[in-house]
Amino acid sequence: MSDINKNPQEQSLLDAVNWNDQGLVPVIAQEESSGDVLMMAWMNREALLETIRLGEAVYWTRSRQKLWHKGEESGHTQKVKEIRLDCDGDTILLMVEQKDGIACHTGEHSCFFKQWDSAKATWVDQSISKE
Amino acid sequence: MSDINKNPQEQSLLDAVNWNDQGLVPVIAQEESSGDVLMMAWMNREALLETIRLGEAVYWTRSRQKLWHKGEESGHTQKVKEIRLDCDGDTILLMVEQKDGIACHTGEHSCFFKQWDSAKATWVDQSISKE
Repeated sequence: MSDINKNPQEQSLLDAVNWNDQGLVPVIAQEESSGDVLMMAWMNREALLETIRLGEAVYWTRSRQKLWHKGEESGHTQKVKEIRLDCDGDTILLMVEQKDGIACHTGEHSCFFKQWDSAKATWVDQSISKE
Repeated sequence: MSDINKNPQEQSLLDAVNWNDQGLVPVIAQEESSGDVLMMAWMNREALLETIRLGEAVYWTRSRQKLWHKGEESGHTQKVKEIRLDCDGDTILLMVEQKDGIACHTGEHSCFFKQWDSAKATWVDQSISKE
């Protein structure tokens, strides 16, 4: 991060977060209009700064080890309406406006489309394609 | 976990989850009635099994390295209404009924009471005690 010039405001933004030992924080994206939890992803400091600068969610992909401007390929960007931090600073909650209402790479509205059915003791896929 | 007898149904529950290299998965608790995201915590396999058995949220505290039946001391238990899993199996979403409407150890409804104010470039504490 030494190659990024941070102003005092950006420093204030970053300092409140308890970054884990990989320099990451988990981020929950919730759709403002519906209240639906859409997905969970990770940010590093640069991703959070980029999110503020762009006004759209920018995550850090652990698998590809790079910044990931959500929707950069699919078009399913997330306009950030609010950024919240939890009591101990180790989780961020983004309130977003989800472009096209599709957050998941599978084409689903939310990534949380599997539900545990305790009666059948099995995970039930509730994605649209399975309905 | 070798000391716990798991039946096939429990195995099916556990096998769908992509546990991280510490054997943990992040868990988002969302209040079913309001849609509010209350908190984020972690579970290991035993915590998830205990959650199913009790019907109340049981997490794994990384700081105390033990099972944590949420509300065991405060009384602010979380009755589990739904258990959802995301597309790649690495995050759980619990839909809960929050006893007394208080999820945070600070006495707040939700742990996410700090909000970034971009105009002032500062985190604003929106907890009840500050209103």
